Amino acid sequence: MKSIDIPAGAIRIEYRVPYADTDMMGVVYYGNYLTYFERARNELMRASGQTYADFETGGAMLPVREAHVEYRSPARYDDLLSIAAWVEEARGVRLTIRCAVLRGEELLAEGYTMHVCVDAAARRPIRLPASLVEFSTRMGAKG
Amino acid sequence: MKSIDIPAGAIRIEYRVPYADTDMMGVVYYGNYLTYFERARNELMRASGQTYADFETGGAMLPVREAHVEYRSPARYDDLLSIAAWVEEARGVRLTIRCAVLRGEELLAEGYTMHVCVDAAARRPIRLPASLVEFSTRMGAKG
Amino acid sequence: MKSIDIPAGAIRIEYRVPYADTDMMGVVYYGNYLTYFERARNELMRASGQTYADFETGGAMLPVREAHVEYRSPARYDDLLSIAAWVEEARGVRLTIRCAVLRGEELLAEGYTMHVCVDAAARRPIRLPASLVEFSTRMGAKG
Amino acid sequence: MKSIDIPAGAIRIEYRVPYADTDMMGVVYYGNYLTYFERARNELMRASGQTYADFETGGAMLPVREAHVEYRSPARYDDLLSIAAWVEEARGVRLTIRCAVLRGEELLAEGYTMHVCVDAAARRPIRLPASLVEFSTRMGAKG
Repeated sequence: MKSIDIPAGAIRIEYRVPYADTDMMGVVYYGNYLTYFERARNELMRASGQTYADFETGGAMLPVREAHVEYRSPARYDDLLSIAAWVEEARGVRLTIRCAVLRGEELLAEGYTMHVCVDAAARRPIRLPASLVEFSTRMGAKG
Repeated sequence: MKSIDIPAGAIRIEYRVPYADTDMMGVVYYGNYLTYFERARNELMRASGQTYADFETGGAMLPVREAHVEYRSPARYDDLLSIAAWVEEARGVRLTIRCAVLRGEELLAEGYTMHVCVDAAARRPIRLPASLVEFSTRMGAKG
Repeated sequence: MKSIDIPAGAIRIEYRVPYADTDMMGVVYYGNYLTYFERARNELMRASGQTYADFETGGAMLPVREAHVEYRSPARYDDLLSIAAWVEEARGVRLTIRCAVLRGEELLAEGYTMHVCVDAAARRPIRLPASLVEFSTRMGAKG
Repeated sequence: MKSIDIPAGAIRIEYRVPYADTDMMGVVYYGNYLTYFERARNELMRASGQTYADFETGGAMLPVREAHVEYRSPARYDDLLSIAAWVEEARGVRLTIRCAVLRGEELLAEGYTMHVCVDAAARRPIRLPASLVEFSTRMGAKG
């Protein structure tokens, strides 16, 4: 199993897998991991001092431009997962967030999402807020 | 098996079940039937002469106030389902739509959703458009 | 607003609404409440002394025969919801579970699911386990 | 806009976007594209002469090891999408399928899933069936 280095400053949430997330293979459907990533990103944003809801209220959005998942071992019904998220890069208009899904110490899936900061009204790219870049840099992200 | 009378004027759509809709019991997860109902309602609205998208553009919405499903027999992966929808009642501010999910002639699930027509800006109940009431009445709904 | 009496013994879970659960009306999509109900049911089963996973391992299943939801007020992105579940009736082969979704003290939605206990191999109805009936009765359910 | 070459032999399906697939940004939630990819893959398998359901009945499975999506322009409610899928590589135990989501001629998203063929009982990698490799090669995939 390829190992993964989760930074000390990564945000972690717990998540209990419902039946709804499983498929007839008896494991979590592959598309649901993108929602798992989102759940952890939401707490990462909250930890940055501004929730994503606040972010949108302030007139900006972070739509996803790219998403990537590598599946190592399946999550199952009723598993209590740990989902970690951390900023890999925050530079200019672009934010890349890494995520990992674990069951105990076992890495089940990992991946990233790349976002572009846009002005909600004009739908044009704008620079990431300085506070988010600073938070990311403190966390060890590439600036 | 309780039978169901689907009116001749009911709208029917075909739908192929993806793996995503199944759960570890090997059948379609119960919550997904509400999306199936919605898919058929969308075509019912289109058949009424005004899509639901047009409806919202016109400043009105039809949020769901009540939903009910009875499950008779499970739908499975790769089934080609037929989903039927028809107006049961269209009166004042309230619209009730019946739906049935079938595999060939076999009834798998049935139910209804009850909607209230609201003004999108004021979020207050408003009368259903006359054209939608007329369409519903022609279809055999209670006026 | 119709009030609802949630029994003292009801199980409650907290749930943070992700973007994934919302729709373009800016609120939680109506079908997702059935997954919310399931999340609370899972903890209700765990509290009964046998998780639903254990239940299935033991050769029985509790497929849903009927689901009903009444929507009072919309849940929104990033809301921290409280989802309550309690047994309304546990008799013979049939189990009815009531659920309520709240934001603080505000009731957003309520409803129920009715399940039939079946033998997983034979797919035939079997009596509910005595332990589940006793748990339900202690909780105030009709026996 | 980066262009994309969809091979002539690619499978295409039509898909009408329901409200369920949208989020409060007013567009299709990013995780749903993985289900869109799956819908097209299912038809690709059917076109190969053996549906994925048959494939599983035959004792093999194709779990996803890697998924990747690039989002160019958002899909919206009631859009009639075209989803294309084709085999990029079929070699040994590994199958890579490319997908593209279009609205008319406009490319909205593209990506791929990489699968490993496993024996369902032993959960060990096995070679892809020769018929699937031949189908893929005829379609222009790397063998």
